[in-house]
Amino acid sequence: MISTSNDIFGKPFPNSKKVYVEGKLHPIKVGMREIQLSDTLHSNGSVEQNTPVTVYDTSGPFTDPQFTVDLSKGLPRLREQWILDRNDVEILNDFSSEYSAERMRDKSLDKLRFEHVNTKPLRAKAGKSVSQYYYACQGIITPEMEYVAIRENQRSQEYLEEIKKTNGAGNKIEITVSPITPEFVRREIAEGRAILPANINHPEAEPMIIGRNFLVKINANIGNSPTSSSIAEEVEKAVWSFRWGADTIMDLSTGANIHETREWIIRNSPVPVGTVPLYQALEKVNGKVEELTWKIYKDTLIEQCEQGVDYFTIHAGLLLHHIPMTQRRVTGIVSRGGAIMAKWCLYHHKENFLYTHFDEICEILAKYDVGVSLGDGLRPGCIADANDRAQFGELKALGDLNRIARKHFVQVIIEGPGHVPFHKIKENMDLQLQHCDEAPFYTLGPLVTDIAPGYDHITSAIGGTMIAVLGTAMLCYVTQKEHLGLPDKTDVREGVVAFKLAAHAADLAKGFPGADIRDNAMGKARFEFRWKDQFALGLDPEKAMCFHDSTLPDEGYKSTHFCSMCGEHFCSMKASHEIREMSEKLETKAKLFRETGSEIYR
Amino acid sequence: MISTSNDIFGKPFPNSKKVYVEGKLHPIKVGMREIQLSDTLHSNGSVEQNTPVTVYDTSGPFTDPQFTVDLSKGLPRLREQWILDRNDVEILNDFSSEYSAERMRDKSLDKLRFEHVNTKPLRAKAGKSVSQYYYACQGIITPEMEYVAIRENQRSQEYLEEIKKTNGAGNKIEITVSPITPEFVRREIAEGRAILPANINHPEAEPMIIGRNFLVKINANIGNSPTSSSIAEEVEKAVWSFRWGADTIMDLSTGANIHETREWIIRNSPVPVGTVPLYQALEKVNGKVEELTWKIYKDTLIEQCEQGVDYFTIHAGLLLHHIPMTQRRVTGIVSRGGAIMAKWCLYHHKENFLYTHFDEICEILAKYDVGVSLGDGLRPGCIADANDRAQFGELKALGDLNRIARKHFVQVIIEGPGHVPFHKIKENMDLQLQHCDEAPFYTLGPLVTDIAPGYDHITSAIGGTMIAVLGTAMLCYVTQKEHLGLPDKTDVREGVVAFKLAAHAADLAKGFPGADIRDNAMGKARFEFRWKDQFALGLDPEKAMCFHDSTLPDEGYKSTHFCSMCGEHFCSMKASHEIREMSEKLETKAKLFRETGSEIYR
Repeated sequence: MISTSNDIFGKPFPNSKKVYVEGKLHPIKVGMREIQLSDTLHSNGSVEQNTPVTVYDTSGPFTDPQFTVDLSKGLPRLREQWILDRNDVEILNDFSSEYSAERMRDKSLDKLRFEHVNTKPLRAKAGKSVSQYYYACQGIITPEMEYVAIRENQRSQEYLEEIKKTNGAGNKIEITVSPITPEFVRREIAEGRAILPANINHPEAEPMIIGRNFLVKINANIGNSPTSSSIAEEVEKAVWSFRWGADTIMDLSTGANIHETREWIIRNSPVPVGTVPLYQALEKVNGKVEELTWKIYKDTLIEQCEQGVDYFTIHAGLLLHHIPMTQRRVTGIVSRGGAIMAKWCLYHHKENFLYTHFDEICEILAKYDVGVSLGDGLRPGCIADANDRAQFGELKALGDLNRIARKHFVQVIIEGPGHVPFHKIKENMDLQLQHCDEAPFYTLGPLVTDIAPGYDHITSAIGGTMIAVLGTAMLCYVTQKEHLGLPDKTDVREGVVAFKLAAHAADLAKGFPGADIRDNAMGKARFEFRWKDQFALGLDPEKAMCFHDSTLPDEGYKSTHFCSMCGEHFCSMKASHEIREMSEKLETKAKLFRETGSEIYR
Repeated sequence: MISTSNDIFGKPFPNSKKVYVEGKLHPIKVGMREIQLSDTLHSNGSVEQNTPVTVYDTSGPFTDPQFTVDLSKGLPRLREQWILDRNDVEILNDFSSEYSAERMRDKSLDKLRFEHVNTKPLRAKAGKSVSQYYYACQGIITPEMEYVAIRENQRSQEYLEEIKKTNGAGNKIEITVSPITPEFVRREIAEGRAILPANINHPEAEPMIIGRNFLVKINANIGNSPTSSSIAEEVEKAVWSFRWGADTIMDLSTGANIHETREWIIRNSPVPVGTVPLYQALEKVNGKVEELTWKIYKDTLIEQCEQGVDYFTIHAGLLLHHIPMTQRRVTGIVSRGGAIMAKWCLYHHKENFLYTHFDEICEILAKYDVGVSLGDGLRPGCIADANDRAQFGELKALGDLNRIARKHFVQVIIEGPGHVPFHKIKENMDLQLQHCDEAPFYTLGPLVTDIAPGYDHITSAIGGTMIAVLGTAMLCYVTQKEHLGLPDKTDVREGVVAFKLAAHAADLAKGFPGADIRDNAMGKARFEFRWKDQFALGLDPEKAMCFHDSTLPDEGYKSTHFCSMCGEHFCSMKASHEIREMSEKLETKAKLFRETGSEIYR
């Protein structure tokens, strides 16, 4: 039923191959992308081999040529055995949600259904905690944690060799080579400073971590809206996001068949999947906010927990007394979830049911290790509304909810804005750290101006870099279609790459160990006119090559010592090589001069 | 001879008209773009008129429907009379440069020549200083300075009204309304903190100012390279840059006929034009660096001064002893001008002739009020080379040269990097302020990572925003083709808009008076679903509309209360209006309850 354009599947990036690094504590294999570089041919005739650069890879099995892509079968269930081996889950006979059962009974949906949806859902055994946070607090280093440590660490082949050597000498690799050890991962999770989203019903996901002492992560939103998009398109957008570097995706579908769409996405997702369960709950009452009930919402949570959603955005911090604070705002409430809950609160003149039922929510989430992303329903929707009482009032409430979630061993991230002028960004991070006990911050941008519709991937990448440098752990991408329409594949690609580069700029600025290896390899490739290596080392090799070829398409131009930007005679890099040679000759002469007595006339 | 696609000329932006604000000290008219907004229709039936928003406009007469575009005639000579009225210039009978004379004699070039090149060049009378810096130091407020004050100030119709009112009451408008008064402009120039580039031979240019207490400016590089481009294409790119918001352009042509190309560009440029005279000097010796001489360079300076170039990038701070400091760099010397001068120095083993002749250079420039942009020939070309000894050694030398230029009343800006990781940006600004007596800083980006070829307009807009917030006065744009090829029209547009938004984000962050008026109007238009107003208020109305229409093309969708991003039922803005109404009703009820005695049972 699902057909997608085949060109994006099973195709590794140019000059790249999938490599797997094995664990030491657990029998695990961590997939990475190794970029192979060509040799440097020096002017003196010598040949220098360039060490391949290994980079963090979110594309999962899709870029492994050994793997045969079949979306209808889904990805390999990488974590299944690790989960079962812990002996703390039970295999349910059937889905616990009433809605799931209803959808399964509906024969008319058969044609839409993911075919292999015959695996039974898992749930924690009574009295057991199954979250990575719980394990971390018990001092247990899970396979997931070791996976993450290897993944965050291994930045280059050189680095790997160094680790091997050090290890061979019997030293503790964890301490001497890099700070990102499995034990470090465990401790960061135990202290609530990082989360490892890993629903026991999403064994296809490759473990990853979100926390400010790790690589900055990015999320890509996908999902259909009633006005466009189909299941096939959404799955395609998801796989497309993994390829370009999305560390997690959020399925924000609001249209028809969102239950079935989600199943297809999760079964094919090597990255954690987030959702906003409120959207689906609202669909279940035909968009009538006042008819939303805790019962319907709760069933939706269970439905999605058993499908394998890894984290939920829950707008539980928007409280009745915050609503009047938005009355004088220029753009009111711009969060979809926030607006829904505010309407509900006012209609019933009752406190937000997500807040009053938050303990029960946590109890459910804990049974599946689903994380909670505390939604900022009152984030500002324009520069004028940034950092106001409503926004920071809610942030303080999110801090309180974080403490409740931790008691239940639920992993927490805190959502942040939104539209914030550059100079007001820091206050957001400062207050988040102050109110939320260092739980990871996850922001949308922020967008540093309102006047650039069509370019909001840039306004938000600017704010995103700044807030990530200050300590935000994950950035939610914003596409160029923001404020205007639903993103298509091009928008997703541009958005993911814009945020990937923002996140990387922050990693560099924070001095993350090894973050500069790829930059340095690029600099060297540029200086040596290794064009194909430049393309391969870039975040978007295809675009870089296409731009280069738009003026100099001939294959021969990929080995010339210039590009069309400055032309041959004005290429500074070319001149620089001549300068270096001249300089060396002068140096040699000077040396000879000194050695022969430094006398000018002889 | 020059034919260009007509669609970009004489076409105002949607819902926009050209307005002119008159001077009070001088008989001047400052062109601005007034964006007209539609009315707000409130749910209670009342109609609210939205004040038009007046924005800074770099497009010159091209967007004035009263003006008939004829590239072969050039733009009106706006400043000619102001210059002549000062009585300090002489009209030369002919061009003083030998090369100019030679080109004029060459009949084969007639078909390429700008037809109306029959105006005589101007030069300062012997013993006279004609620079805006000189006038400012003498306490003179020129028409150019008042022009700039009005241009920087007038942000909205409302603002203008306010000024009128205050003025009517007999107050000093300069002090009560805004800090950007003509006197303030004069003082900033006199203190060397700002420059007003205004070659007496480029009277077509509309005065503008570059300094950190003014709106952040952006420069667009255009120019052909030997591998592509023609005169028509370059003029078209220039006009295109003005349209999207370039405050100055630099013509970096290196191919054939650069003398003629430049003439066409200057005669049609409403913004100051910069060049790197070294490029043309090198062409004159057929690309043989060792054959460059002071004589050839000097003649090139005079040639370009008399054509009307407003500022020259001169790589006079790259000294012989700096060159060995680049020996261990990953990417050596990446500035074209820097590489040329380094080669020259090494070949002759002599000090940079631009440095040794700097006093003479200043004497020439002073005669035409051409500014000097002290080039950073040793700017870093990759993250690894940022902030090294070579770079900062040159910066210190630029500070010394600045002090020399000031003695000659030459206006100065200082060029800055380049490739700099985010956390090392601040040191650049700090040292520039320390070494260069607050002369305006003009940076290329900086690019905060090397790994995103194809997206370098974004990596550089990120660094550009940061350094502009810290006090950089002008940002040189970087296009998405950077490192890959010569930008085409699309790249120029994307690049200009990316930098326009970065500069604006910095204006907001610096709290520039009135900078948020356009953002606030956009926020209000968004909240009220005035789609056409949103497009018109954006930096690129055409792209915004095109994106909107890609999913909802019907004209009717431009008045609906949602877009395809979230769809009708999930539109938070729509919900927000309902929330506001509900909230107001509750408030009314509560008020009634209080007024009637606050008793529940009656």
